[in-house]
Amino acid sequence: MPADQPHDEFSLIDWIDKRSPGDPQVLLGIGDDAALLRVQPDMARLATMDTLMQGVHFTIPPASPRQVGHKALAVNLSDIAAMAGRPRAALVSLVLPRENGIPLAQEVHTGIQSLATAHDVVIAGGDTNTWNGPLVVSLTVLGEVDAHRVVRRDGARAGDWIMVTGALGGSGSGKHLAFQPRVPEALILNEQVSLHAMIDISDGLAADLHHVLRHSGVGAVVDVTSIPISRAAVECGDGQTPLEHALCDGEDFELLFTLSPADGRKLLEQPPFATRLSKIGEITAAAGCHLRTAEGRLEALPPRGWQHGFHSGPAI
Amino acid sequence: MPADQPHDEFSLIDWIDKRSPGDPQVLLGIGDDAALLRVQPDMARLATMDTLMQGVHFTIPPASPRQVGHKALAVNLSDIAAMAGRPRAALVSLVLPRENGIPLAQEVHTGIQSLATAHDVVIAGGDTNTWNGPLVVSLTVLGEVDAHRVVRRDGARAGDWIMVTGALGGSGSGKHLAFQPRVPEALILNEQVSLHAMIDISDGLAADLHHVLRHSGVGAVVDVTSIPISRAAVECGDGQTPLEHALCDGEDFELLFTLSPADGRKLLEQPPFATRLSKIGEITAAAGCHLRTAEGRLEALPPRGWQHGFHSGPAI
Repeated sequence: MPADQPHDEFSLIDWIDKRSPGDPQVLLGIGDDAALLRVQPDMARLATMDTLMQGVHFTIPPASPRQVGHKALAVNLSDIAAMAGRPRAALVSLVLPRENGIPLAQEVHTGIQSLATAHDVVIAGGDTNTWNGPLVVSLTVLGEVDAHRVVRRDGARAGDWIMVTGALGGSGSGKHLAFQPRVPEALILNEQVSLHAMIDISDGLAADLHHVLRHSGVGAVVDVTSIPISRAAVECGDGQTPLEHALCDGEDFELLFTLSPADGRKLLEQPPFATRLSKIGEITAAAGCHLRTAEGRLEALPPRGWQHGFHSGPAI
Repeated sequence: MPADQPHDEFSLIDWIDKRSPGDPQVLLGIGDDAALLRVQPDMARLATMDTLMQGVHFTIPPASPRQVGHKALAVNLSDIAAMAGRPRAALVSLVLPRENGIPLAQEVHTGIQSLATAHDVVIAGGDTNTWNGPLVVSLTVLGEVDAHRVVRRDGARAGDWIMVTGALGGSGSGKHLAFQPRVPEALILNEQVSLHAMIDISDGLAADLHHVLRHSGVGAVVDVTSIPISRAAVECGDGQTPLEHALCDGEDFELLFTLSPADGRKLLEQPPFATRLSKIGEITAAAGCHLRTAEGRLEALPPRGWQHGFHSGPAI
């Protein structure tokens, strides 16, 4: 075994530490009891935590351990993006299977570190454990946001446009492992327009729109013809229509946000980045979430999505 | 089932949310994408993360789910204490077994919340997942510390006294589930004396002293007659001596710290709290870690502890 190959949890932590570039915000990183981080003046702190479990959120294969690391950080970055925050530091907790746990941890960490570097996020601490069970990867991401510019779920107003980034549906065929969290898009949007409410689409378009409506105390009408449907949703070929995939599938990790029609028009006329932007509907004062069909008919859109011919209840 | 009993992960999160008292530092807590926390001016941020797994760090029974929750928060608070920090907020990630996962989660949360309330820590977020595996409880604790008053592992100086709180050894017979993290003691010590280095004893007295020595680039002599041995270590009756237990057992979660002899004397003459304080040895300029026997003989004290008659290598 080469001298720099870790052979136990202590040397694994050293290996991880050596691969973490220094960062002026980290006064004390991996190796003491807790990470010590400098706080930027006039910023509020964001904190989010998400856990991925082998056999539930991923299987290896088809996922590679690097993709698992990427996804574990990306889902947390997506949460920070949904608040229009800037991610700053991550803590990583790895629960490793006993067999081949150390090389597995190195691959997972490489996936985490690669995405962390791309977003200028420092890995400031965490812990490592081994057991006879499957891989569990839990990450905490700390971020910052101007407390007066944070975008919550509860700010949608009647008359707002509803917009989304990217294209939706079929994430399970690959995007859920490789997606790019919409951190830069969220920061740019928050600079250029006044975002009223925002959420990342993790449970599915219909479900996450319902979260926004419930928190904001408003309703919505979504135009079925304006939903951006991904190529993956079209190619699923599993009996569900591409529209059903776009409405129901989880783990798209695109941003859903509401804003004034004037701000919405500004974004469509002068797109501030290459990522696709679509207006998919409008917020209504009246409660309820509806889909406007191509023929102009309004049909109920329950949280779990919509299936043609099954309008009375949620699709499972 | 009573109306307020949660039946799925969403209603469990609501149940947890209702039990979290409001806190002026939390601008936005459970229910959005990330927790939003106010930052105190002139404070640096501490962040720590620890994961406990069923079958590794606890078994149920003999541990109760409430004790598991207590321990999961307490180990993180102990890390914040070891930096002389003030814990402020926690994120909780629960990975629940499918069978009886919800009532189990409620009991675990009750244990977490009870200790959180005692230390004025707010539960600001986290996530909940279910699988076919055992219980995994991962916590992040965020704290604050005056950046100029933080106590690290690497500040021990030749001539320092080495002191510990409490009594050591035999934690496995119960203390490891019920210990009180030494948060108030650490804050008081840091106010009243100049702490040079500090660590919490999680790996065992010998192992954690070695961490301090390695980080500080110094050595130590520990007086065998001055180590405070717990009643539990005396009563283990498993063939190891009480001293061996006190040197080697992990999970005592007492504080080990170094300071000037003048400050050490001050603490012993006017103890600032009821928790026992003991001087156990001195830091030396010469590298190496030694035990001074009752007869005054110096013997090597390896990181994994010391066994009478087996001085040449670490005891397993």
